[in-house]
Amino acid sequence: MLKDFMITSYDKKISVDDFNPDDTLNLDKKDAKAETLLLKERFRALQEMLYASKKYALLIVLQGMDCSGKDGAVNNALSEINPSGFSVKAFKVPTPEELSHDYLWRIHQQTPGKGEITVFNRSYYEDVLVTRVHGQIDDKTARDRFEEIRNFEKYLRNNHTIILKFFLHISKEFQKEQLLERLEEPEKNWKFSENDLKERELWEQYQLCYSDVLSRCSSSHAPWYVVPSNHRWVRDYFILTAIVKTLEKLDLEYPEIQGNEQKLIDAVKASE
Amino acid sequence: MLKDFMITSYDKKISVDDFNPDDTLNLDKKDAKAETLLLKERFRALQEMLYASKKYALLIVLQGMDCSGKDGAVNNALSEINPSGFSVKAFKVPTPEELSHDYLWRIHQQTPGKGEITVFNRSYYEDVLVTRVHGQIDDKTARDRFEEIRNFEKYLRNNHTIILKFFLHISKEFQKEQLLERLEEPEKNWKFSENDLKERELWEQYQLCYSDVLSRCSSSHAPWYVVPSNHRWVRDYFILTAIVKTLEKLDLEYPEIQGNEQKLIDAVKASE
Repeated sequence: MLKDFMITSYDKKISVDDFNPDDTLNLDKKDAKAETLLLKERFRALQEMLYASKKYALLIVLQGMDCSGKDGAVNNALSEINPSGFSVKAFKVPTPEELSHDYLWRIHQQTPGKGEITVFNRSYYEDVLVTRVHGQIDDKTARDRFEEIRNFEKYLRNNHTIILKFFLHISKEFQKEQLLERLEEPEKNWKFSENDLKERELWEQYQLCYSDVLSRCSSSHAPWYVVPSNHRWVRDYFILTAIVKTLEKLDLEYPEIQGNEQKLIDAVKASE
Repeated sequence: MLKDFMITSYDKKISVDDFNPDDTLNLDKKDAKAETLLLKERFRALQEMLYASKKYALLIVLQGMDCSGKDGAVNNALSEINPSGFSVKAFKVPTPEELSHDYLWRIHQQTPGKGEITVFNRSYYEDVLVTRVHGQIDDKTARDRFEEIRNFEKYLRNNHTIILKFFLHISKEFQKEQLLERLEEPEKNWKFSENDLKERELWEQYQLCYSDVLSRCSSSHAPWYVVPSNHRWVRDYFILTAIVKTLEKLDLEYPEIQGNEQKLIDAVKASE
């Protein structure tokens, strides 16, 4: 079912407009929420095996417009799992030191080790999104970066890092509702930034750049998922389904004891 | 109630033997478990305010013998909160590069920023524990380090980092049961290391070194808590109570909107 929202090659032109941010995947809300709880449990069990077996790393990339629900995806879909070996890295505006290096430099320092799961809340994709929308890079540089990013992701995959990329797709009207909520609810005020309003004016340019990213930076080993995110319950169900399916394909197993198990048991029993 | 297990100065000799690892704090197990769930919710709410207000950082140090339940404390007491701004750092045997620096060098790189919570699963305290038990440092060096650590913690506290240190206290018999469980349950095999058996032989030396740490590295701004940990439900209840009480004292608040709120609401409403 998720196949229709999954992009696995970079040989055809994709547009974000091909996808409906209001999509509910023909799901009943109540059923999906119940299923989401089961998926969380399954994810938790799979994470423990991933951690114990130390064969693969998992990198989860979250991208999307302001208010698309990246923070919420972390706090709802991706919470309640073992915090050991699980981390979230939010990439902000680069520091002067980071800017003095190539754009993947700060990224590579944060990629997960074997057994670990790392979530990128924004990522190196900002280097072909916000920079492009604001004219800091031209189209030629963007095209070069698409290739560099594909190669970087291939390299990570060759070195045991599983990559899942989620574009949280919302409508412009939905963003307006969310911005108003941040202003009107005191406990959400801190999430509001005046800059969000300026970025909102560049909505169309962002959508075009996202379409390019989906078209040019998708592959079977690092697919993009377009996640309908106007409904938060769809977003959570979708992301967890994709993660669980991916981890299940890895045939993870708990490692066995090295050495003679009975001898070790006897030694522990004999100890003071 | 936790006061009896909290050490807030370094002016008197403390022994781990003064504490009973089987202690249940006069609690009923069922009541404590119900209370633990409420504490988790409270922690979650406080964490969000800590994160939003960005005034303080929280550093949680977990120390204890093998099988004392450090990983379990993370996975049970400290899971289910927002993974954004929350991370766990497990300190392993230092790498050659880390060893080429002073012992706080690798530690300082991992301390939390304002708004963040970081859990150290083992910590710089290993540099006055495992190193001392194995004769890599002498008593004079240990005494120097106690002072250095006190000063380091005072420095962090002066710079808005709240520090809570938990010594997970178990009995030697309890460790034996846990080691056997790791050997006998296939899904726990991966947690067993033959080295644990060798370290077990040094139990008494470790207890003496822990007693020194509690005696010499406690202060009101970076107290040690001796957590009775033979019962996991006591451990979880204890740790969460200490964290919640500490965060509540900070009088955390959500920040308010900067600028004219109504003007911003109007601007969002007027936007396309």
